[in-house]
Amino acid sequence: MAKILVVYASDYGNTEKMAHAVAEGVTLVPGTEAVVKKAEEVVADDMTASDGIIFGSPVHMGGMDWRLKKLIDTVCSGLWMQDLAIGKVAGVFATGSGFGGAGGGAELTMLSMLNNIAELGMIMIPLPKNTPGYAKGGMQWGAYGRTGDENLNPVGVSDEALSVARLHGSNIARATKALKENPVFKA
Amino acid sequence: MAKILVVYASDYGNTEKMAHAVAEGVTLVPGTEAVVKKAEEVVADDMTASDGIIFGSPVHMGGMDWRLKKLIDTVCSGLWMQDLAIGKVAGVFATGSGFGGAGGGAELTMLSMLNNIAELGMIMIPLPKNTPGYAKGGMQWGAYGRTGDENLNPVGVSDEALSVARLHGSNIARATKALKENPVFKA
Amino acid sequence: MAKILVVYASDYGNTEKMAHAVAEGVTLVPGTEAVVKKAEEVVADDMTASDGIIFGSPVHMGGMDWRLKKLIDTVCSGLWMQDLAIGKVAGVFATGSGFGGAGGGAELTMLSMLNNIAELGMIMIPLPKNTPGYAKGGMQWGAYGRTGDENLNPVGVSDEALSVARLHGSNIARATKALKENPVFKA
Amino acid sequence: MAKILVVYASDYGNTEKMAHAVAEGVTLVPGTEAVVKKAEEVVADDMTASDGIIFGSPVHMGGMDWRLKKLIDTVCSGLWMQDLAIGKVAGVFATGSGFGGAGGGAELTMLSMLNNIAELGMIMIPLPKNTPGYAKGGMQWGAYGRTGDENLNPVGVSDEALSVARLHGSNIARATKALKENPVFKA
Repeated sequence: MAKILVVYASDYGNTEKMAHAVAEGVTLVPGTEAVVKKAEEVVADDMTASDGIIFGSPVHMGGMDWRLKKLIDTVCSGLWMQDLAIGKVAGVFATGSGFGGAGGGAELTMLSMLNNIAELGMIMIPLPKNTPGYAKGGMQWGAYGRTGDENLNPVGVSDEALSVARLHGSNIARATKALKENPVFKA
Repeated sequence: MAKILVVYASDYGNTEKMAHAVAEGVTLVPGTEAVVKKAEEVVADDMTASDGIIFGSPVHMGGMDWRLKKLIDTVCSGLWMQDLAIGKVAGVFATGSGFGGAGGGAELTMLSMLNNIAELGMIMIPLPKNTPGYAKGGMQWGAYGRTGDENLNPVGVSDEALSVARLHGSNIARATKALKENPVFKA
Repeated sequence: MAKILVVYASDYGNTEKMAHAVAEGVTLVPGTEAVVKKAEEVVADDMTASDGIIFGSPVHMGGMDWRLKKLIDTVCSGLWMQDLAIGKVAGVFATGSGFGGAGGGAELTMLSMLNNIAELGMIMIPLPKNTPGYAKGGMQWGAYGRTGDENLNPVGVSDEALSVARLHGSNIARATKALKENPVFKA
Repeated sequence: MAKILVVYASDYGNTEKMAHAVAEGVTLVPGTEAVVKKAEEVVADDMTASDGIIFGSPVHMGGMDWRLKKLIDTVCSGLWMQDLAIGKVAGVFATGSGFGGAGGGAELTMLSMLNNIAELGMIMIPLPKNTPGYAKGGMQWGAYGRTGDENLNPVGVSDEALSVARLHGSNIARATKALKENPVFKA
C-alpha cells in the first residue's frame, strides 16, 4: 500500500476543500491511501511514514502561508539533514484570489513549495496541460483554485478546480506507487 | 534629458504595441525621451547611452523570447563584465495568451528579465496595485497584456493593458530622472 | 529625514549581525536614520512610518524564515490591501550555510522576499557586481553572508559579508532619500 | 529500451563535458540508452522519440543559453501545443563561473529550464543531497559544474561535478524506465 500525505494551510476553507479533493483523487487509485492534515498537526513521523507528500497553500503576497513555511523550517529541515525524504514523490496545489488575469503570485507560491520538495530529494509531478478543466483549475506546477474574480471579490473554489485537484491527486498516487516499487535513487 | 530605451521581441505585434505604449508613457514625463528598438537591433552603445532600459517579451513556455535572451547573452553580458549598466533604472512588461486563470508562466517570464536587470545592477521599478487598469493589464513585476482568453483563443492586447503600459512607462521615466540626478551607487 | 526599517529573523545571530551592518550603512548617509527590529516585533505602523524597508532572513529549505513570512502574511498583506507601502524603497539580504558551491537556495530565498516587495509596490535596489567584497558577500539580489563552508560546517558571517551589508545599506539609504524627494508613483 | 535525449548548449566545452557525463550515467542503467545533441541540432522527432529528456546549459546572466531557449520557443512549444511530451521524464544540469559563493544565478537558470519541463508535463527528477560529490557538483535542482573560482578565474569543470553528472544521469534513467512501464498520466 502506497501512503500519501496531503498537508495544507487554509484560511477560509478553500485550500482545505482542494486538499480533500486531492485526497479523493489519491484514493481512486488502487493500492494507495491518503491522509489529510493541517500544517500545524504534521510531525516528522507523518512524513517519514509516507511514500508521497502533497503540499497545498493559499497564495499570500506571492508566497506560501506562514504555517506551512513553519512546518518546512521546523520539520522538513530535520528530514533534509538526515536524508529521510529522498526518493518520495511530491506535488503541489494552491488557491488564490488572483487579482487580475495573471495569477497574482500563484506561480512563485507553487515554486516556493517545490523548492522545499527539491531540497528534500523528492520527485516532482507537474500538472499536464491536457488535464480536463486545466483552463479553470490548473497551472504547469499543479492544481490551482482561483477563489476571487479579477477585482478581488470572493467566488469560492470552482467545481472545475476541485475536479483538477482530484485528477492531480490520482496522478501523484500513480507515480508514488510506481516509484515505490522502482526506486529512483540508489541507497 | 533622461534617455530611456524600450527593447522588445514580438511575434504577432502584441508586445510591439505594448512597447510603443510604454514609450508613450515615458514621453509624457517632462525631461525624458524614449527610443523603441527590437531586440535584434540593439547594440551595446544603445544601452550604455541610456539612463533607463525597459525590457518586454511575449511569454514562451514560461520564459522570455529567445531573441531577447540572445541580446542578453551577447550584449548585456559584456556590459555586466565591464560594470557599464550599474545604477541605471529598469522595468519589464510582457504579453501572453495565458491559458487558464493563473498567468501561464507570465510571472517567471518577467522574473527571468528581472534577473538580467539585477545582475546588471539596475534599479527595478514594479507596478503598484493601485495602477488604474491593474486588474486587466498588470502584475506586481510589471505591465502584462493578456492576448488570449482562458481557452487560448487570440483576443489581442486590450486597451486597459495598453493604458497600464503607458502608466508603467511614466513611472519608470520619473524614477530614471530622479536617480540620474541622485546616483544610488557610489563610483 | 528618510527613515529606514531593517527587519529580520535570525536563529544563531548571523542574520542579526548582518541586519546591524546594513543599518550602520544606512546611518553613514546624511539625512537618513535606521531602526532595526526582529520580525516578531514589527507592527504595521513601523512600516508605514518608514520610507524604506530592508528585509533579511536566513535561508531555510530554499525560502525565508517562517517568522518573516508570518509578518508578511499578517502585516504586509494589510498594507497591500490598503496601498500603504507603494513607492517606498526596499532591498533584501540573507545568510545561509550554503552546502556546495551554488548558493543552497539563497537565490530563491531573496526572491521570495522580493516578491512581497514587488506586490507592495516598493522600488527594488539590487547589489551591483562592482561592490567591494561582492565575491565573499554578494549576490545580484542583495548582500549574502555565507555562514557555513561547502560541507555545512559553521564558520560564522565573514567581515567581507558584513562590509557588503554596510555598503548595501548605504545604497538603499541613498535611493530612499532620492525617491522620497522625487516620488515615482503619482498619487 | 528507454531512450533518453541529452540536449545542451556549450560555449567553452564545459557544459558539453557535463552532457557526456550525464549520458554515461544513463547508459550505466540496464535497458536504457542515451543520445547527446547540441540544442541547434535537435528537431521535434528527437524529442517525441525519447522517453526522457535532460536539458543542460551554461549560466548566462542568471538564465539559460539563448540557443537552448530558441529550441524551447521553436520546437518545445509545438510539442506543448499538441500534448506530445506529457508523461516523459526530465532533469536539468548547468555550469557556471559562479562569481562569489552563492551560485551566480545557477538556481534561476535551472528553474527556467524546469519551467519548460513542467509546461510540457514532464516528471522532474531533482538531485538528492546525499549524492556523493554534491558539495562540489550539486544543487537541489540538478548537477552543477562550477567552472570558475569566486573571482571569476576559469578552472574548468571538476571531476566531482562530472561524477555528480553521471549519478544524475543514472537517476533519471531509472525513473524514465520505471515510469515508461507505469504511466503516471492517463491517456
